[in-house]
Amino acid sequence: MRMYDLIIKKRDGGTHTKEEIEFIINGYTNGDIPDYQMSAWLMAVYYKGMTAEETVDLTLAMAHSGDMLDLSAIQGVKVDKHSTGGVGDKTTLIIAPILAALGVPTAKMSGRGLGHTGGTIDKLESIEGFNVALSQQQFFDNVNNLKIAVVSQTGNLAPADKKIYALRDVTATVDSLPLIASSIMSKKLAAGADVIVLDVKCGSGAFMKTLPEAKALARAMVDIGNMAGRKTYAVITDMNEPLGCKVGNALEVYEAIEVLQGKMPDKRLYEVSITLAAYMLMGAGKATTFDEAKSKCEAVIADGSALNKMCEFAKAQGGNEEVIKNPELLPKAKFIVPVTFGKAGYITGCKNSEVGMVSLMLGGGRATKESEIDLAVGIDIVKHIGDYVEADDIFAYIHANSEDVIESAKERLVNAYTISETSESGYLPVIKEIIQ
Amino acid sequence: MRMYDLIIKKRDGGTHTKEEIEFIINGYTNGDIPDYQMSAWLMAVYYKGMTAEETVDLTLAMAHSGDMLDLSAIQGVKVDKHSTGGVGDKTTLIIAPILAALGVPTAKMSGRGLGHTGGTIDKLESIEGFNVALSQQQFFDNVNNLKIAVVSQTGNLAPADKKIYALRDVTATVDSLPLIASSIMSKKLAAGADVIVLDVKCGSGAFMKTLPEAKALARAMVDIGNMAGRKTYAVITDMNEPLGCKVGNALEVYEAIEVLQGKMPDKRLYEVSITLAAYMLMGAGKATTFDEAKSKCEAVIADGSALNKMCEFAKAQGGNEEVIKNPELLPKAKFIVPVTFGKAGYITGCKNSEVGMVSLMLGGGRATKESEIDLAVGIDIVKHIGDYVEADDIFAYIHANSEDVIESAKERLVNAYTISETSESGYLPVIKEIIQ
Repeated sequence: MRMYDLIIKKRDGGTHTKEEIEFIINGYTNGDIPDYQMSAWLMAVYYKGMTAEETVDLTLAMAHSGDMLDLSAIQGVKVDKHSTGGVGDKTTLIIAPILAALGVPTAKMSGRGLGHTGGTIDKLESIEGFNVALSQQQFFDNVNNLKIAVVSQTGNLAPADKKIYALRDVTATVDSLPLIASSIMSKKLAAGADVIVLDVKCGSGAFMKTLPEAKALARAMVDIGNMAGRKTYAVITDMNEPLGCKVGNALEVYEAIEVLQGKMPDKRLYEVSITLAAYMLMGAGKATTFDEAKSKCEAVIADGSALNKMCEFAKAQGGNEEVIKNPELLPKAKFIVPVTFGKAGYITGCKNSEVGMVSLMLGGGRATKESEIDLAVGIDIVKHIGDYVEADDIFAYIHANSEDVIESAKERLVNAYTISETSESGYLPVIKEIIQ
Repeated sequence: MRMYDLIIKKRDGGTHTKEEIEFIINGYTNGDIPDYQMSAWLMAVYYKGMTAEETVDLTLAMAHSGDMLDLSAIQGVKVDKHSTGGVGDKTTLIIAPILAALGVPTAKMSGRGLGHTGGTIDKLESIEGFNVALSQQQFFDNVNNLKIAVVSQTGNLAPADKKIYALRDVTATVDSLPLIASSIMSKKLAAGADVIVLDVKCGSGAFMKTLPEAKALARAMVDIGNMAGRKTYAVITDMNEPLGCKVGNALEVYEAIEVLQGKMPDKRLYEVSITLAAYMLMGAGKATTFDEAKSKCEAVIADGSALNKMCEFAKAQGGNEEVIKNPELLPKAKFIVPVTFGKAGYITGCKNSEVGMVSLMLGGGRATKESEIDLAVGIDIVKHIGDYVEADDIFAYIHANSEDVIESAKERLVNAYTISETSESGYLPVIKEIIQ
């Protein structure tokens, strides 16, 4: 088998066999196939696509290119959640304690990553003393005892995907449905969960701008998961504006605690969190209908057991549980600056990526692997798409630790929004579709 | 400007500016743009094509990536010919003396190359004493005095094309009309001639299998040449079987001398040679109509002045002119073995590449840069497509210097041909179309 012939096959619209896909992925991962042949093949895939079978074979080949986590030491059905990425998404911090309170184990290995805020483990480090570097035994023990543990990812998961993604990123071949779907699912399959619930974001601030695109990606990923023997659901959710009010690390932990306290700081955030948690509960076999699952999730918020689980979780990983009881103890920025639009009207649009950039410029995220994150900074958004604002109404607060950056952050945040005299869309429904 | 953005532009069907094309070609040639980005861009070009303007800009950028030969020291209009490649093509050896006899300078710098036989300069080395390494001054002097000189290529012509072609060759992106046309024309433009006549081969033994494909390539190249300010013609010629009778180095010189002697060993070879020579003469302004040009070419064969020019040419480059007067003095192989089909019928098809492979296995060409060529070996084909043969009619002779290879060469040569009870195509017309 020669890579040259396989490039021609895909170039001319052919369908690869499982053996051919494995030859490509293994050959590229171990360095036998050079970058320049792989990028030519990726561009051919960009144009000619892949069948469902090819996509599954690609996903499995990438999943098996490194460690396949063995979670069999954990009792019960292991359920994992994945979001395709948006701004202000703190649902993991809300869902994991809910599920743990309902007896569903959350065993999460999470990366730090680059972005406008840190990853879940960076956010958890806002809790004084929180340790994300447990031994494997401690990790499994915590999950079995408390049903919840979140640690920094150590294994070598799907190295093929990592190498291929880096190449796609510089060769304009990211934007291909089978490549996106297989990239996400290869890591999920390698992470070892029995049930996978996908939060596929849709809208101006998401990778998938339109509902048909988001549905196609969700369908592809659900099919991959099911064909690979993992029960998989996808919830398509709106990402035309940040999810919830707060963007930042400590700020997002704050908002998650508020949700667990039953305060409902933002209806959309609540809906997304409960819907994802409900499907995870169904996947784990703890409920048979969505309504039953939803009621159970809401019950553990109402009776305080989810919040209590969050306290136990923080304490078990060395964190100060008082922070959970009183989130005012979280790190705070020196400057909290109100922002106004300076004109009246309806908020009708938001460039999410610009809101993310404001978080990044405040120091809330990593621009490079070496960047230090400032956990305290971020944005607190109090008005949303569909709201009417007067010219001097405060629509957001910028939380900054450096005075220099405030003016440009304000300007950029204001410019991220569209204000109109009328509101055609009104409030945006946040749950758009369920794919299973 | 970033290569990443230019890949996206072409991927999405956009049209590059001249500056963008120059950025890509210069960046790739000097190593700023890595192979993996270039191959992704080439695959996008494969699918999305290029406009005529883009193709001209690409050609010029590649032509200017290295030396641009300055032929201004040569008096008169400089005319160059290029063939897209076939088996048995010895037209340069025939045309150059014809044109020189008519006062049109031939200043040819030729590579050795890889292939089933050597290049023109290898073939000329079959003439005892022939020296292809003249000084530049000697080269120009010979052209001005005799109107003809052929030397080994020394300059660094179109290095961008060389580097890009090597990448296309391993990434399945050779097969793209604008890339093929610009590759050929960049070298021709750099070689400095005022007039370019292209011999675009068409048929089973050519890169372009069908007439529409060959016409499209011819059109693209003629347009590039004319837009770049060089008068350009293309003659589309049949390449469903080797051109003429003889394939090999000394054997092809032998056949060329026969043509110059007025013996017409093969009607098709004669027609192609005279047609190309006539267009070159017209391009040089020495004739106004094709018929006039053709008559002039035929006249210098008839009166012996073309053959005489070949003698002067050989002598001026240190060759033994007696060889031209008596081609029996050319190197001869030890074994000359007749070949029969063993069955009767019409010759209806020929796999040219297989005939070429027989020449290569006999030692007539270079498989690698380091290979030594055996100038004496080759094939002498006496029956052609359209001919009827009895089972024991000799259709070819194999000229070999090693006994070991004879049987497999015979078998491969026989298998290269198709014999049928009827001849649907009959004799194939050799001049298919003129593009100007």
